[in-house]
Amino acid sequence: MKQELGVCYYPEHWPEDMWAKDAADMVAAGIRWVRIGEFAWSRMEAVPGQVTLEWLDRAIGTLGAAGLKVVLGTPTATPPRWMVDKHPDMLAVDENGAPRKFGSRRHYCFSHQGYRDECARITQIVAERYGKNPHVVAWQTDNEYGCHDTVISYSETAKMAFQSWCRDRYETVEALNEAWGNIFWSMDYASFEQIELPNLTVTDPNPAHVLAFRRFSSDQVVAFNKVQTEILKAHTDAPLIHNYMGRILEFDHFDVGEDLDIASWDSYPIGFLSDRLEASDEHKARFLRQGDPDMQAFHHDLYRAVGKGRWWVMEQQPGPVNWAPYNPAPLPGMVALWALEAFAHGAEVVSYFRWRQAPFAQEQMHAGLQAPDGREAPGMDEARAVADVLDMLKEQDTQQADVALVYDYASDWAWKTQPQGAGFDYFRLVFAAYRGLRRAGLSVDFVSTNCRAFSGYKAVFAPGVATLDPTLVSAISEAGALAVLGPRAGAITDEFMIPPNGRPGVSNLDVRVDLIESLPPHAGMDVSGGGKVEHWHERLSGAAEVFLKTQDGAPVLMGQNDRWYLGSFPDEALWDRVVSMACEQAGVVMAPMQDGVRRRRFGDYDFVVNYNSFSASVQGHRVPACGVLVFEGGAPVVACDLSSG
Amino acid sequence: MKQELGVCYYPEHWPEDMWAKDAADMVAAGIRWVRIGEFAWSRMEAVPGQVTLEWLDRAIGTLGAAGLKVVLGTPTATPPRWMVDKHPDMLAVDENGAPRKFGSRRHYCFSHQGYRDECARITQIVAERYGKNPHVVAWQTDNEYGCHDTVISYSETAKMAFQSWCRDRYETVEALNEAWGNIFWSMDYASFEQIELPNLTVTDPNPAHVLAFRRFSSDQVVAFNKVQTEILKAHTDAPLIHNYMGRILEFDHFDVGEDLDIASWDSYPIGFLSDRLEASDEHKARFLRQGDPDMQAFHHDLYRAVGKGRWWVMEQQPGPVNWAPYNPAPLPGMVALWALEAFAHGAEVVSYFRWRQAPFAQEQMHAGLQAPDGREAPGMDEARAVADVLDMLKEQDTQQADVALVYDYASDWAWKTQPQGAGFDYFRLVFAAYRGLRRAGLSVDFVSTNCRAFSGYKAVFAPGVATLDPTLVSAISEAGALAVLGPRAGAITDEFMIPPNGRPGVSNLDVRVDLIESLPPHAGMDVSGGGKVEHWHERLSGAAEVFLKTQDGAPVLMGQNDRWYLGSFPDEALWDRVVSMACEQAGVVMAPMQDGVRRRRFGDYDFVVNYNSFSASVQGHRVPACGVLVFEGGAPVVACDLSSG
Amino acid sequence: MKQELGVCYYPEHWPEDMWAKDAADMVAAGIRWVRIGEFAWSRMEAVPGQVTLEWLDRAIGTLGAAGLKVVLGTPTATPPRWMVDKHPDMLAVDENGAPRKFGSRRHYCFSHQGYRDECARITQIVAERYGKNPHVVAWQTDNEYGCHDTVISYSETAKMAFQSWCRDRYETVEALNEAWGNIFWSMDYASFEQIELPNLTVTDPNPAHVLAFRRFSSDQVVAFNKVQTEILKAHTDAPLIHNYMGRILEFDHFDVGEDLDIASWDSYPIGFLSDRLEASDEHKARFLRQGDPDMQAFHHDLYRAVGKGRWWVMEQQPGPVNWAPYNPAPLPGMVALWALEAFAHGAEVVSYFRWRQAPFAQEQMHAGLQAPDGREAPGMDEARAVADVLDMLKEQDTQQADVALVYDYASDWAWKTQPQGAGFDYFRLVFAAYRGLRRAGLSVDFVSTNCRAFSGYKAVFAPGVATLDPTLVSAISEAGALAVLGPRAGAITDEFMIPPNGRPGVSNLDVRVDLIESLPPHAGMDVSGGGKVEHWHERLSGAAEVFLKTQDGAPVLMGQNDRWYLGSFPDEALWDRVVSMACEQAGVVMAPMQDGVRRRRFGDYDFVVNYNSFSASVQGHRVPACGVLVFEGGAPVVACDLSSG
Repeated sequence: MKQELGVCYYPEHWPEDMWAKDAADMVAAGIRWVRIGEFAWSRMEAVPGQVTLEWLDRAIGTLGAAGLKVVLGTPTATPPRWMVDKHPDMLAVDENGAPRKFGSRRHYCFSHQGYRDECARITQIVAERYGKNPHVVAWQTDNEYGCHDTVISYSETAKMAFQSWCRDRYETVEALNEAWGNIFWSMDYASFEQIELPNLTVTDPNPAHVLAFRRFSSDQVVAFNKVQTEILKAHTDAPLIHNYMGRILEFDHFDVGEDLDIASWDSYPIGFLSDRLEASDEHKARFLRQGDPDMQAFHHDLYRAVGKGRWWVMEQQPGPVNWAPYNPAPLPGMVALWALEAFAHGAEVVSYFRWRQAPFAQEQMHAGLQAPDGREAPGMDEARAVADVLDMLKEQDTQQADVALVYDYASDWAWKTQPQGAGFDYFRLVFAAYRGLRRAGLSVDFVSTNCRAFSGYKAVFAPGVATLDPTLVSAISEAGALAVLGPRAGAITDEFMIPPNGRPGVSNLDVRVDLIESLPPHAGMDVSGGGKVEHWHERLSGAAEVFLKTQDGAPVLMGQNDRWYLGSFPDEALWDRVVSMACEQAGVVMAPMQDGVRRRRFGDYDFVVNYNSFSASVQGHRVPACGVLVFEGGAPVVACDLSSG
Repeated sequence: MKQELGVCYYPEHWPEDMWAKDAADMVAAGIRWVRIGEFAWSRMEAVPGQVTLEWLDRAIGTLGAAGLKVVLGTPTATPPRWMVDKHPDMLAVDENGAPRKFGSRRHYCFSHQGYRDECARITQIVAERYGKNPHVVAWQTDNEYGCHDTVISYSETAKMAFQSWCRDRYETVEALNEAWGNIFWSMDYASFEQIELPNLTVTDPNPAHVLAFRRFSSDQVVAFNKVQTEILKAHTDAPLIHNYMGRILEFDHFDVGEDLDIASWDSYPIGFLSDRLEASDEHKARFLRQGDPDMQAFHHDLYRAVGKGRWWVMEQQPGPVNWAPYNPAPLPGMVALWALEAFAHGAEVVSYFRWRQAPFAQEQMHAGLQAPDGREAPGMDEARAVADVLDMLKEQDTQQADVALVYDYASDWAWKTQPQGAGFDYFRLVFAAYRGLRRAGLSVDFVSTNCRAFSGYKAVFAPGVATLDPTLVSAISEAGALAVLGPRAGAITDEFMIPPNGRPGVSNLDVRVDLIESLPPHAGMDVSGGGKVEHWHERLSGAAEVFLKTQDGAPVLMGQNDRWYLGSFPDEALWDRVVSMACEQAGVVMAPMQDGVRRRRFGDYDFVVNYNSFSASVQGHRVPACGVLVFEGGAPVVACDLSSG
Repeated sequence: MKQELGVCYYPEHWPEDMWAKDAADMVAAGIRWVRIGEFAWSRMEAVPGQVTLEWLDRAIGTLGAAGLKVVLGTPTATPPRWMVDKHPDMLAVDENGAPRKFGSRRHYCFSHQGYRDECARITQIVAERYGKNPHVVAWQTDNEYGCHDTVISYSETAKMAFQSWCRDRYETVEALNEAWGNIFWSMDYASFEQIELPNLTVTDPNPAHVLAFRRFSSDQVVAFNKVQTEILKAHTDAPLIHNYMGRILEFDHFDVGEDLDIASWDSYPIGFLSDRLEASDEHKARFLRQGDPDMQAFHHDLYRAVGKGRWWVMEQQPGPVNWAPYNPAPLPGMVALWALEAFAHGAEVVSYFRWRQAPFAQEQMHAGLQAPDGREAPGMDEARAVADVLDMLKEQDTQQADVALVYDYASDWAWKTQPQGAGFDYFRLVFAAYRGLRRAGLSVDFVSTNCRAFSGYKAVFAPGVATLDPTLVSAISEAGALAVLGPRAGAITDEFMIPPNGRPGVSNLDVRVDLIESLPPHAGMDVSGGGKVEHWHERLSGAAEVFLKTQDGAPVLMGQNDRWYLGSFPDEALWDRVVSMACEQAGVVMAPMQDGVRRRRFGDYDFVVNYNSFSASVQGHRVPACGVLVFEGGAPVVACDLSSG
């Protein structure tokens, strides 16, 4: 597999006479791909119906002539101002009932048919014009679905679409009432038209109602995206991509991914550490200028699954950003490390965002590879270093890992709807499991709950999977893998009810959840032999063997044959024990890593990345601070060391 | 007085063929009462005007046939969806102006006449049908008035009703302007129609305006309830009950209680500890699985007063609940302890909520005596143990306590309107006083500010009573009791003005408040001899004797004859001193309790409850962890010990 | 310059037969000025068009007859209720879109032309009637512009006025698009009518859009005030004043000040400490009953500049107030100290708020010089003590300081719009600089960015000035003063873009900002030799000399000739070093002060104030706790010591 660098570029932001030099400079820096166009609707169609694409023809021509491969974005994330005049009801509505106004981006409700038609129209126009253009080698749909909390909208448009969605799913309103348990507080509906969106209720709405609305909202994203992919596929053979974000769970990325060829994501390690990660102050201070050592890898592995094996980093942080609460600069080496780590996880392209820092508008404090005045920013040299490392490595392909981790968006919707304890969060749980596997030095594959092909895996972890399809567990067993389920797995039916046959209700595993406790901070329970239970504890019974129990004797981990059930939310030390026991049982070889150092197998190579600000030692070899060491056959073959700045 | 167990049951949630066995199982578990019907309007009248009660006839018949006494609830807390179509303006409106929508419960504005008429209609229907039914032995109106912050509504309906209420109270708008001091910022009205509700003002609205609106809002609850009680009284002789909640102060429960025969409340000790109690982290951790040792007793005693001596626990927590931030499970013994403690305070019935955990809708994670699949949950055995203890005890009646505590809802409205210091809260103050009395081993009676019959009391505490009617103080004196007033007692007139003759303005008590300080956390003032002043300090002068003063010499407690004034908010140690000095003065015999252990005199018995997770010793006798020891004549006669679980 | 005491009085709150005695008592207490009328519109015009001013004639007559000089306020901060009926769209709208309703004060949108016309009308009426009245010796316009966050309104009225403002500024919408960089996310407008206000956008709006709206909002205040000053100037020669508040930066006070003769402000030291100052808990506890030692002086010096040399304290805290989160009482001596400190900074009048505590409405817990019942409150004696001290001192005039501090409201608008780091705040930065200068014992003058007359200054500090006009820096140099610029000075153009020639872009100063980091709490960087960088760090390069650097070698303070650039946000210790280095360079003589003690040169006197609750020693002389010592020629000549209470 060929692996290359890219960059994001906005020709519409710069005088046309700068384009050719920019393109040449990109190529000189080792860049091969350039993404353009995704925010340019107001230049493509400043007046409704008057399409002006000559400038884009020239931009693509100039970039292509320099040898760059163009990724062209549909501009639908930034509808122009006239669109809102034309479709005043296209705006999303927040949970308090306020419209989310024009003036930034993503100001549309996914359910709005009129806006979908406009998107189809502009997509048709660019697809017809550039579908066969030799320089346009890939396409991006829209931009960062779900960013700025834009999946869920409480608009009138969304309400009517939801009613229609309910009609399709339940056929009769009696069936819906039964499915949701609406008898509970006299919440029965007499018709689909009576169904409101579940915001602004006096107290909690019915969780089945909310879950249905969350499913609907996710489906709208899928449908919105599909409008574009169907048009694009009719006009081009180039791969279709979307650039997802980090820790966005409001829509099912696997579903969107079905209609695309490649998954990509926008990786901002330092912004994410500050903005969207639960961690101790000490941890955040330690990795302040590096980002969390597992957050990027987690998403790399996740989006590899979403992309059915093919994935990119579409936007890679190149320096300080503007949008997190605090925005420090990366330590020397990190801008290169992040890209190399992505390649180690199998990225085809890593594309820096952006070529040149814009001196105006919202992101003027967001670094680029160039400063606003065209001087090189610190990231440029690091990009060059990455290109050099790529040149030194042989092409490789991603191989299957020993361990798989089930990831399920609907489980997050369920547990956000009814967390039962303020400390319980689905992502937090899965991320904790992933960290534990990575501390053990393991490479990890993600799978969706629709996966039934587990051949080759030795162990499969399924924490927090709300609804457990028996065929999922059977498929794991049939593949000869150990299934480690829980906590809170199999806890509800598809319609958010407690399963009639008890939890988790897994055949050939005599474990039963009798009672559940959610726990406040610092009320953890010690586990015999080490580690603690935090946040969540299920009281387990049954004939299965008890592998771990609290000091008070309550079972924590039970199992039978190749099916284990973990009833509690482990702290780090306990996760290490669970992972270690599972690996031993499943025959997975561990290679425990020191804090901040991580390993990823990629073809013949073992990539070791060091997120620490000081050097580390791995197998007797020095891994530089914020650096990368690539092993082949146990010996280091390539190093990336920029720590001296 | 006969004391019995009950349970809450929802026949509409379960197949009819389960009802008879459920009823038999209830009886077998020692349960004698069953509450039904309060959320079933959509089954009683699925289509407007088409009443279907045959199922309810059969349910009542089945339960009654098994020997159970039925409490029938009016279903007005859960108006069906069609009601909102019929009366679109019936919804309450929050302080930001957003309607509080259908989709959960309590979605109505108390002021809405159309909805009141609908409530009268459905009440008339069930009263006519079941008023003489031999199995329906008590009635409940609506459900948990005020839960989910539903007393105060800023709807147009409420605004017009408030204008009308003002017209009734003040007669002329000039009188209202004068009463409220509207001249202050040119806030005078020229007509009642100009009066708006006091939300969304630029800065604080006039406190007199707010207090009037709070009075009005409370009166709407009283009027709403009265619509039902008047109809019920015309058709039944069975006692009428409402189930109040914990720490709800938005309406005057004494006023509602006037129209009812029995007060009841819904007691969720663990939920309340997590959700609505100021306490240190250490305290909350210590009583995490037991609940606060005074919170339940406080409400038991309060609702005994609200019920004019007759009171129940209508809903008793039987295991983990679903609605608090964190929901741990009760320690073994607590489910029994809570019920027995209620009986010790004179409850006629303690009714567990609910019989069987519902597997669907909002409360599916709320434990019952049975699990969703019908197996017994841990609470069932504890209920049986309570029934056994009841069998072993002789019937008793509640006797008057030595000490009374004045409780005044309007004072909370006043101090919420103008706290003057972020640390001042009326409930917090009264609860602190109550705790102090309980630490002294005293039984306590609550009285309203309308009470004038103090005969038999030796000491009456009145902390934070905003407006002191001189006849209240006189009545205390005439009864020969010591009055301990303050802090912040007599601080405003009935119309929220500073009293013209100074504070507290109590005759025969030469104490004057010259100046007031509110204090941030950790800025307390040490009191000579021990204890601290926190949150609130009044600078006192006058010829009365100074009993306590700060180390800087500022008076804290002053008094003359049988009238004492406390000018500051005491911490625990200072409360202990104040209580001790007052008891000595008043001739009240104390029996200081160790932390977590509480005593309640009930007829011939002394109940000692131990909220600790370890055993305690009282008078040389072991009180088990989470257990109860009943003394008679100084000797233990019955114990409840389930701590081995 | 004559310096005198005043008081705020509300004849409309009290029976007319009390006025004469009140006036006599004021005079007896040493008071010479009385402010009246600013909230009395509902008494001046209870019915639209029916003006009743006879009561005010009598009030002015009574006060004047007693020898008091009257400051008469226009009543426009409290439009009567009928005004809102007449102009229903006059209310401001908050950022969530909710109208800010009648019921308190300041319920108007500055942009509303109809309300401006009403203000012109009432101003015309009172100006005509009292413009030549011999007792009305000064005028106040409105009251506390901007208090309660009232400058910014998102009303329809404001939107249309903003569109018009944009049309005036940019002339064509293409110019506006270009100026704001609207191409960035397809945010271009096709007409001015399309421009919305920048609230409720999906994510951050364009900062250039926000900055324009903030400028517009400030301009509306200026225009609103000018309506009144133009009318008043036509009818009176008395000076025109407005009473500003503390730490209000939403409008440009210098611009408003251009149309007035005297600036005044309302000084509430204890309220501000609790309510609007970032400080450690330790600092807040230490000065709980005194107020921050620099907050008042800061505003005294600022408003002296806003008033072009003439300034007052229009409202001076006399005891506990009602509006802060916590409201403790001043320590004995503070009520006098605050007034004397103001006089030391050159105040012409210090006016206590208010004469008598009102027993009703919003401020009933706000102390006065008298208690509600007319007894003297503790502040009265302190006011008398101030009058005595004034009598003992010779008249003085304010002289120019050695050091100037540039203060720029637009910089706050810019950095609020795009803080880039949650710890960065413009006021916080300037106040930290001011504190540093005061710790060095220096008197300080404020200047606006429009100042070009720096003659006489030895050093000029300009921290955080968003846009640096080159002529400002030149003017400093031409005056022979040292310019200490930064951090974040010259960081954006007038239209919120990064300057094309780099930052800070100051001629003859070879310093360049290459990169910016914002830092979370506790992530500061140590500076070699002492002190720390907090919150904000610019990576500097260039040929200028490096005066200070971090322990890692990053430059912190650089300079060349008479132009220095500070790239980081210093902590206290580092500010002390920067100030000390600058003073040495500029030849400014320092006199370091101990914590809580401050010095101010005033004519021949040096005032030393001691904010501590314990006595201090200055030049071998004891300064009493909460007291003042006035030096002349190095020797103490007058002391104010009320600490014994």
